[in-house]
Amino acid sequence: MTDPIPPFSAAEYDRRLAKARAAMAAQDLDAVIATDPSNQAWLTGYDGWSFYVHQAVVLPAGGRPLWWGRNQDANGAKRTVDLSRTDVAGYADHYVQSTTRHPMQDLAARLSDMGLGAGRIGVEMDNYYYSAKAHAALSEALPQATLLDATALVNWCRAVKSDEELGFMRRAARITEKIQRHAIERAAPGLRKNELAAGIMAEGILGVGEDWGDYPAIVPLLPSGSDAAAPHLTWDGREMRDGEATFFELAGVYRRYHVPCSRTVFLGDPPDHIRRAEAALIAGLEAGLDAARAGNQARDIANALGAEMEKAGIERGARCGYAIGLSYPPDWGERTISLREEDETVLEPDMTFHFMPGLWMDDWGLEITEPIRITAEGPAECFCDLPRELIAKP
Amino acid sequence: MTDPIPPFSAAEYDRRLAKARAAMAAQDLDAVIATDPSNQAWLTGYDGWSFYVHQAVVLPAGGRPLWWGRNQDANGAKRTVDLSRTDVAGYADHYVQSTTRHPMQDLAARLSDMGLGAGRIGVEMDNYYYSAKAHAALSEALPQATLLDATALVNWCRAVKSDEELGFMRRAARITEKIQRHAIERAAPGLRKNELAAGIMAEGILGVGEDWGDYPAIVPLLPSGSDAAAPHLTWDGREMRDGEATFFELAGVYRRYHVPCSRTVFLGDPPDHIRRAEAALIAGLEAGLDAARAGNQARDIANALGAEMEKAGIERGARCGYAIGLSYPPDWGERTISLREEDETVLEPDMTFHFMPGLWMDDWGLEITEPIRITAEGPAECFCDLPRELIAKP
Repeated sequence: MTDPIPPFSAAEYDRRLAKARAAMAAQDLDAVIATDPSNQAWLTGYDGWSFYVHQAVVLPAGGRPLWWGRNQDANGAKRTVDLSRTDVAGYADHYVQSTTRHPMQDLAARLSDMGLGAGRIGVEMDNYYYSAKAHAALSEALPQATLLDATALVNWCRAVKSDEELGFMRRAARITEKIQRHAIERAAPGLRKNELAAGIMAEGILGVGEDWGDYPAIVPLLPSGSDAAAPHLTWDGREMRDGEATFFELAGVYRRYHVPCSRTVFLGDPPDHIRRAEAALIAGLEAGLDAARAGNQARDIANALGAEMEKAGIERGARCGYAIGLSYPPDWGERTISLREEDETVLEPDMTFHFMPGLWMDDWGLEITEPIRITAEGPAECFCDLPRELIAKP
Repeated sequence: MTDPIPPFSAAEYDRRLAKARAAMAAQDLDAVIATDPSNQAWLTGYDGWSFYVHQAVVLPAGGRPLWWGRNQDANGAKRTVDLSRTDVAGYADHYVQSTTRHPMQDLAARLSDMGLGAGRIGVEMDNYYYSAKAHAALSEALPQATLLDATALVNWCRAVKSDEELGFMRRAARITEKIQRHAIERAAPGLRKNELAAGIMAEGILGVGEDWGDYPAIVPLLPSGSDAAAPHLTWDGREMRDGEATFFELAGVYRRYHVPCSRTVFLGDPPDHIRRAEAALIAGLEAGLDAARAGNQARDIANALGAEMEKAGIERGARCGYAIGLSYPPDWGERTISLREEDETVLEPDMTFHFMPGLWMDDWGLEITEPIRITAEGPAECFCDLPRELIAKP
């Protein structure tokens, strides 16, 4: 099999650049510097594990996007972007982790060459990998430019998915189902958590048929018992035990598109308080899915869930979901819309979310979640076909 | 098995805090805010995949370190740090990815409570996850404080490893050897790259005997043929083919301690230009290992390698190594010492490096590398016992 490079059609990238440029025009920006690797990939197709050094895609209001990064990674850019549409520029290796030079000095010179030296330039102040020092160095090297906060400007353009993107997410969802079923089947007293994590990771990367699996932006999370009170503990070498709940928060990934989903396995007979929480959670999910309609607001989903939680006397205190799609470590969320009381974003068809009402109590945890797509007419479509319940394995 | 929590002895953490405080005293700092997750783990033992939201360890010149992060992750902190030695504070969920609030406003209030509101506070301007916006928000919320650049201050304290740390790295090295041998054995025409990546990832997480494997800070890198010119491409679903070199850049990981190492497999009979490069690389590695002695400088290793490369007419143009140890995504380097001509750092016993003279040419690549420890007396010790050669599989 051969995959197209970059993965989407030229028309799809045209659509994306036009959307980003419209958002830039609304802020009267001459260019945006995207330092978030997911924005770089979305704009140009660039794909590589090189985001640990400074790199960016510069999107000027007119003209071609520029991929900019370390010299050795320009080789990767040339292999992952369409060179008839994207320019590629590398900086010398002595800029890397130097105490006397900063890569942003190199970028500043290129921006000046592009006629942007005195421009209004959007920078992603609070996206990943745009460090405080990067901003200071760029500001100093471009004294005539005006640097404006464009945090999440490109991320917001990604909220509504195209048909091509939804196709990728459906492939990812098949991988998600596969690894959830794998985890649920294997879970048993005496199984070491790292053995379970190894299997999940391998099955995810193997993928489904021709659809090879990509690496997830967050590793499999699978804490047990009291540790399940902490949502982001990673595995260790301890064995699974009778009488404990373990949640599996896992994402299948197809070419960087993530479909995260959680299920919980209880080894043995679940105690009443967990069964009660399960019932409330399922009722809350159903209410939330019904509220997840185009025209409603993001908070309507949170409020529908919240009403069921309140009836059951459960206090959550955290948002219950976030936008999903194309992602790189350290996060598989898009960092735009949050499903919570204060988020008034109006839902549109083909927005995609992880509806994620995790329960992390003092000494136990329970996760039953649904990755969803907002539809034009009805309640949300769930990407995954998995039993919406706590799985008890006696 | 039960692992101690946190993983090292109290004496080891005392040593670390004392070392960091000495570095702070040299800059007359009242506190350091460590936003780099590897620094947080090194100072307190905190371990979790929660670094995608703002979090930090605050180390005051006097008094206990404070772990600070999202409320739900405070549960994880309580499970991974020694609570008799580390304080834990969580912030409310509505600070997460908010457009109206910033978590640094919460941290600023806590710093004021700690009597640091008008202090000299070191911030990691160019470490991971301290964004431009975080710095702006903290500066605004602490108008009386002086924020000073403490990039890599804690990282530098980590350069010389303790015996406890070296013990972890030796365990990681056994995992590295295992996954390298796995990859070398499996490589064959027709094998899809994602299948190979799946096996490597699983074997790494399974670990060796009781020593469970942790997730690597960089996924397995294994580009083939022309793609091996690009060091940071990740896998896809294509098959390995006769007549191509594939390098395996892989790290075994034991409790966040990384020992990365690369080997290259050629399927078929390697052409002369690759055999010549191999010979030069091996001569360069030997010369570099001999120069890697306490009292020499980091650049002596680079220069020794460089002389052999020059003899062979090979231009590299990139540093040939970096400090290694405790790491979180996106990088397994410590981002302090670089093995390159301009780095005059004097080598000390028990410094650890990935001596990494990768060759990324126009349309091929070759990696044969060694993770090393500087010894008191002789040339460097190699962590891994792997044949130092290009592996040809006819």
